[in-house]
Amino acid sequence: MTRIEILCTGDEILTGKTVNTNYSFMARRLGEAGLVVYRGSTVGDDRETLVAAILEAAARADAVVVNGGLGPTVDDLSQEVAAEAAGVPLELDHGWLKRMEGYYSSRGRVMPPTNRKQAMLPAGSEILHNPIGTACGFRLSIGGTPFFFTPGVPRELWKMFDEIVIPQLKSLSGVETVSRVKRFHSFGIGESRADEMLQGIPGVAPDGGVKLGFQSHYPQLETKLMAYAVGPQELDRKLGPVESEVRRRLGTFVVAEDDQNLEQRIIDALRHQSASLAVMEMHSGGSISSRLLAVPEGGPLLRLGVVSRDLGQLADAAGLSVGERRCTLDCETAVALAEGLRARCGSTHALALLACIDGKSENDQQSNQRRGDIFIAIVSPSEPVTRTATLVGGHRWIRLGAIELGLDCLRRHLYGLPVDQRIDFEIR
Amino acid sequence: MTRIEILCTGDEILTGKTVNTNYSFMARRLGEAGLVVYRGSTVGDDRETLVAAILEAAARADAVVVNGGLGPTVDDLSQEVAAEAAGVPLELDHGWLKRMEGYYSSRGRVMPPTNRKQAMLPAGSEILHNPIGTACGFRLSIGGTPFFFTPGVPRELWKMFDEIVIPQLKSLSGVETVSRVKRFHSFGIGESRADEMLQGIPGVAPDGGVKLGFQSHYPQLETKLMAYAVGPQELDRKLGPVESEVRRRLGTFVVAEDDQNLEQRIIDALRHQSASLAVMEMHSGGSISSRLLAVPEGGPLLRLGVVSRDLGQLADAAGLSVGERRCTLDCETAVALAEGLRARCGSTHALALLACIDGKSENDQQSNQRRGDIFIAIVSPSEPVTRTATLVGGHRWIRLGAIELGLDCLRRHLYGLPVDQRIDFEIR
Repeated sequence: MTRIEILCTGDEILTGKTVNTNYSFMARRLGEAGLVVYRGSTVGDDRETLVAAILEAAARADAVVVNGGLGPTVDDLSQEVAAEAAGVPLELDHGWLKRMEGYYSSRGRVMPPTNRKQAMLPAGSEILHNPIGTACGFRLSIGGTPFFFTPGVPRELWKMFDEIVIPQLKSLSGVETVSRVKRFHSFGIGESRADEMLQGIPGVAPDGGVKLGFQSHYPQLETKLMAYAVGPQELDRKLGPVESEVRRRLGTFVVAEDDQNLEQRIIDALRHQSASLAVMEMHSGGSISSRLLAVPEGGPLLRLGVVSRDLGQLADAAGLSVGERRCTLDCETAVALAEGLRARCGSTHALALLACIDGKSENDQQSNQRRGDIFIAIVSPSEPVTRTATLVGGHRWIRLGAIELGLDCLRRHLYGLPVDQRIDFEIR
Repeated sequence: MTRIEILCTGDEILTGKTVNTNYSFMARRLGEAGLVVYRGSTVGDDRETLVAAILEAAARADAVVVNGGLGPTVDDLSQEVAAEAAGVPLELDHGWLKRMEGYYSSRGRVMPPTNRKQAMLPAGSEILHNPIGTACGFRLSIGGTPFFFTPGVPRELWKMFDEIVIPQLKSLSGVETVSRVKRFHSFGIGESRADEMLQGIPGVAPDGGVKLGFQSHYPQLETKLMAYAVGPQELDRKLGPVESEVRRRLGTFVVAEDDQNLEQRIIDALRHQSASLAVMEMHSGGSISSRLLAVPEGGPLLRLGVVSRDLGQLADAAGLSVGERRCTLDCETAVALAEGLRARCGSTHALALLACIDGKSENDQQSNQRRGDIFIAIVSPSEPVTRTATLVGGHRWIRLGAIELGLDCLRRHLYGLPVDQRIDFEIR
């Protein structure tokens, strides 16, 4: 197994001014190609640190990708530090110089003299072509380890990385392996409970080779299976039984898999049933509507979204006359509001989410011990469905939980699942 | 000068699944505090590599911040590898265990046994409190170098980093200089135009020492002034004149400063004027309402928010009778809708934002050359105010621009500024 390191250079990245998306691009691509990144480093535009980082990586890794520092300005040091680390001189690459001059003259400009340094490469290096920019990449052996120097401009990197670097790394590694990540998104169970529910899961894979991981982003939890194998069929054989077992154990808590999300699955179900929706929200900031509207096909299916903290305003918007207005927050009120809204805007389904969050003052965002009572009603041509829940925590925690619970009840209802399955975040 | 390293852990980050925003947050904050990051590293959830990376960092740096790996699951290894690298055993921290149990029981749950490992800390470590989660951070000396282990959950990290880690690192470094970052948030000007408008700005500071920077997050632009000085008075003296000059040059494009934001300033103005608001939105996914509702004081002031892509639904929600319904998207329709909504829900102000985005199909998210026509109306006890704009770009670009323009018009109206000042993003 070839151990690959990624070394990112540049003050912008080091100081956090720029978020390092080049790193995540390269690491993701390597993983997809069945290659293994085992280390990433970031250093600034500083000669001494750069040389040290290159030598350390050369000692540790089987191959290294360096990103950035190939530009024409004084703080672009990659060619110089590569030469210094390899103990070789810089030499002018006449071919690349010609290509750069051509690049400029084809745009009716004269190449600035500073660009000449982009054609000065360490002796013994091999050019990695950049068809869309003036920074050529190069491959150079340092301390016996192959280094790939790549440009920092994202679209130049993407092209060079996919077309040149990945194939060369694959051939170096003799890697025929492919990899896959299978993701399950769930709502209602915390990370530690999921960990318990999935005890022994990696062992389900024939001959092993499957890794289990979690990523918690409240209120959802992502459960991941990572697998490597020599080919797609082997991958299917390994992952197939593990996937089924995870699906079985997490059961109805799984709201979506892979690139799908909860709101997309709701919209899919609505489309499939030729249904449409109206939503009324209190204390959730209109987030149920906005998340459904963020799904490309969601716009036409969400007939109307209404948000207010004032029950009177909601009743009025639902077309309820004063006599019918109820002043208490409960499930009956939620059903009445949802029915009213559904009748008013002619949708097949309507969801109402009412919430009451206690606290000395509405504006007190500090307390982490508030109590939130949630009342959800879903109406449709069949019987109304309701769900109540009590969450305890900060204002934001309760609001996020309420939003997710509202969406999840809708998913459960549309897919014929029980809406009252207990979630870890509620108290009963 | 203290050389600080940041070591980020976790397969998610290493494999590029998650973009490493925790790194950029920490590096930026250190820079703002006058501290120097000179190296960043990323390693996965692998015991051997983690220990090696910790020992290498200990040998190189004066202080190290480690991020991630403090969770309850099997792939969270930070406490164990820290103990191994320091050559000390793990010990149960009774205080933290009690705190975790309390955290769970206050939520009506029993702490899962797996969480106990979060209270197992390397002997000799000092707890870094986490008031909002179960992962406590800790400080431990490894090979004579102080290490700060911090949680990977962003909001837990932010709090611990700003409140505990930065002050401790400053005191370690003996950094006596104070620093300040002054931020201006603007809408309507791009980075290169702002750069032109602010030519020579750092020179305005007496004796220099002020750095100018930009961070563009469309549709807003953040302009930053960074200053270092020996004390707060010196800082005021340096920054004062520069701040005034930036404010003067950017003029009405500045929507907020520092930790304030556009929506907060709108809510402030509404409160100040004892006013209230209703909002009707098309094609903006309810984002104007949700952003105003996200301001703590916004809830009661936003009487009603309505969202739909269907003009008929909006007209009905505004209480317009069929005869009054207009079928064209224009400013007159926007005014009629806003007036209707205002009358209906008794608010002093109402905003209507209508948008029409062209394209072969509504679901075609690909094209980057769509045209979006935006019609905004603001009604209040005084004359209605309208604004039209045409944006060209992808669907998301247009939607984000429309939302910001709607909010910005409201800000301008409430603060008595012209609503029709041309923005860089529109075509005329």
